[in-house]
Amino acid sequence: MKKDVRMVDLIEQKRDGKAHSRAEIRWLINGYTAGDIPDYQIAAWAMAVFFRGMTPEETVELTVAMAESGEMLDLSAIGRRCVDKHSTGGVGDKTTLLLGPMVAACGASVAKMSGRGLGHTGGTIDKLEGIPGFRVELSQTEFVEQVQRIGLALIAQSGNLTPADKKLYALRDVTATVNSLPLIASSVMSKKIAAGAQGIVLDVKYGAGAFMKTLAGARNLAAVMVNIGNSLQRKTTAVLSDMNQPLGRAVGNNLEVLEVIDALQGEGPEDLRTICLELGAWMLVNAETVADAAEGKERLRQVLADGSAWRKFLAFIEAQGGRLAAVTERKLEIAPLTAAFLAKETGYVQEVDAQKIGRLAMILGAGRETKESLIDYGAGLILTRKPGEWVEQGQPVLQLYTRDAQKLDQGLQLAAAIIRIGQEQPTLSPLIAEVVQ
Amino acid sequence: MKKDVRMVDLIEQKRDGKAHSRAEIRWLINGYTAGDIPDYQIAAWAMAVFFRGMTPEETVELTVAMAESGEMLDLSAIGRRCVDKHSTGGVGDKTTLLLGPMVAACGASVAKMSGRGLGHTGGTIDKLEGIPGFRVELSQTEFVEQVQRIGLALIAQSGNLTPADKKLYALRDVTATVNSLPLIASSVMSKKIAAGAQGIVLDVKYGAGAFMKTLAGARNLAAVMVNIGNSLQRKTTAVLSDMNQPLGRAVGNNLEVLEVIDALQGEGPEDLRTICLELGAWMLVNAETVADAAEGKERLRQVLADGSAWRKFLAFIEAQGGRLAAVTERKLEIAPLTAAFLAKETGYVQEVDAQKIGRLAMILGAGRETKESLIDYGAGLILTRKPGEWVEQGQPVLQLYTRDAQKLDQGLQLAAAIIRIGQEQPTLSPLIAEVVQ
Repeated sequence: MKKDVRMVDLIEQKRDGKAHSRAEIRWLINGYTAGDIPDYQIAAWAMAVFFRGMTPEETVELTVAMAESGEMLDLSAIGRRCVDKHSTGGVGDKTTLLLGPMVAACGASVAKMSGRGLGHTGGTIDKLEGIPGFRVELSQTEFVEQVQRIGLALIAQSGNLTPADKKLYALRDVTATVNSLPLIASSVMSKKIAAGAQGIVLDVKYGAGAFMKTLAGARNLAAVMVNIGNSLQRKTTAVLSDMNQPLGRAVGNNLEVLEVIDALQGEGPEDLRTICLELGAWMLVNAETVADAAEGKERLRQVLADGSAWRKFLAFIEAQGGRLAAVTERKLEIAPLTAAFLAKETGYVQEVDAQKIGRLAMILGAGRETKESLIDYGAGLILTRKPGEWVEQGQPVLQLYTRDAQKLDQGLQLAAAIIRIGQEQPTLSPLIAEVVQ
Repeated sequence: MKKDVRMVDLIEQKRDGKAHSRAEIRWLINGYTAGDIPDYQIAAWAMAVFFRGMTPEETVELTVAMAESGEMLDLSAIGRRCVDKHSTGGVGDKTTLLLGPMVAACGASVAKMSGRGLGHTGGTIDKLEGIPGFRVELSQTEFVEQVQRIGLALIAQSGNLTPADKKLYALRDVTATVNSLPLIASSVMSKKIAAGAQGIVLDVKYGAGAFMKTLAGARNLAAVMVNIGNSLQRKTTAVLSDMNQPLGRAVGNNLEVLEVIDALQGEGPEDLRTICLELGAWMLVNAETVADAAEGKERLRQVLADGSAWRKFLAFIEAQGGRLAAVTERKLEIAPLTAAFLAKETGYVQEVDAQKIGRLAMILGAGRETKESLIDYGAGLILTRKPGEWVEQGQPVLQLYTRDAQKLDQGLQLAAAIIRIGQEQPTLSPLIAEVVQ
């Protein structure tokens, strides 16, 4: 690349709909990470990207540049193919906690970094931290050794993972440039690439409770991310799933872990089981443990039925220092103040806006308003009735848990605005819409 | 306006093609000027404006908000209607120096602030500073008194004029967001509004040597600026003029002043006279000194012919401390090293790219590369042949003046790449394309 490249020229290039070269994207990301290119130039550039988009080649290059801006995990010491899974985020999404043990019980290796949550409820790491004694930080040696031994380790995201993405995302957040397909896709995928797994499964949600409001939007995003992964020799599949209503019945960290415990023992809600079979099957395919998704599902049903998924979960909790009794005896703290929201009439529960349920859980204390907020692991809610289910007047629809009487009142008021009951049985969209490979 | 307005929401609003309210624009400009809104948010916003544009109402509001961000000149003490003139910038543009005395000699009042130049040659203030003793800074009292007495005063732009525009322009310059019609128009007009004149004439240039490359672009810009002026009770007219070739024959500060002296005495190049009659006529119309442009031109021809424009110029130079002999005896310093660029063949001089001529003048020392560069008032060039004129092989086409032998060599080399001679007489576009009111 020419020595005298100037950021203003790259902004102009993008503004006028031209594509950047590989070298230009590297220069931009390295310069921004190093602090040589100021925020205001990247902000203008990001807005130009919002309007002009990026070619597939540019998007792949941006992903690589961001992945290589920080630590790149080397999972080769494990000596086995590893598979990673990412969700674009939903309400009541506890799939990672289920999928890790399920997939590992089938013989695949899951070496995964997860994040903390911001918004409605915690992330996977927050949910694990609700289990007394559980360590979310392992040394590189411990991490590798644990995956070799039990096929599963789950740790908090390294502080030095994709610093370019961290910096860029924070800037996009305050400059109305989050909502750009190539920027979203490269942000997600840069972390997956840096995290080192050879197989990747993406759970791309759409609907009221998801970042992508429509199936078409989710499909586009999935296609871009799958292309990035496959272009970079990661076997990548995306599952498009409905997030118009929360997943499962529990929303809130410890409440969700209890639901996971049920599901691993063959109980738990049907929708949670359905999506875990789909995602898990593709994880097994991309780990090259099974030949196709049908075989994957069969194997997963088996490890749920014969208890080996549950035993894998216990081995995993134990390996990372969690107190076993907390899960075997369901001794997880639940917030002491509770109240049911009762049906005001008899009929079918209509649509339940997932985003509003997420908001309700956050008000009860289950999520973080800002990065600095403290999570109440025991707060949250249970959907005692899900959309499409029948309820009699005066029966509970939601059960709320919190530590603060005022929040409980607030929560009950909000619930009244969320729950609608009608005489018609609502038509629910299918949970899994399609698979993008 | 709501108390909890956030800049990120305004960026999103503009990104999605919605218009800002009057209060929102005020909030944005005041917040940016005060340093409460960071550069990166304004950069993203400016790029969104680049793509989405602004409504006429938004553009007017932005102009007012920027005008009111700093000092607003109050010319009411003068007790007469004042007229201002602005050029979007061209090569060899010395019209202000001519128009001031011409228009004042017709009885109108010109109370004007001008800028220093950046790029090819100096601005009006630089040209005046080439005259020994000339003071470009007057107190408010001196300024008002001089306009009352001789109808003309010309000073350097106040440091506190439109600080919002200064800040925004500097940011746009490094974020590839200069080239936005509403942002260009509001930038120019905010300074005119703050400068206080009741009548405004805009000289909007187009072509190779101008910011606007096409007539259509210039027409759009003119329409937006004229609308702003008229919406704010300033009688505003724009003249669209060709800047495919330099205006007049002289390019460079003192060389241009000498050409102005000629023109004020009825000599000088035809194109310079033509454009000054057009612009001057509209200045007289907008000063409400004459009923229409035809009457204005008649009056201007008269003051040129009877010497009153020239005497007004001398009164103006004297009033601001300039040494009269410098102009009456043409004692302005010209750079000592000179060389002619000679025609390599016999024929008609073809198109002469004004931008390249400007670049050549800058290399010789007539302009500023950066704000800190020192100008050589005596450097520049004379087009001894203009496009369309016949030249014999070996006759001079350009005469270069500089203080540095190396620059002279460089200049002669560059000249060879600029000057083309052909057998066909080139078709030249008319100098004045149209008038926008």
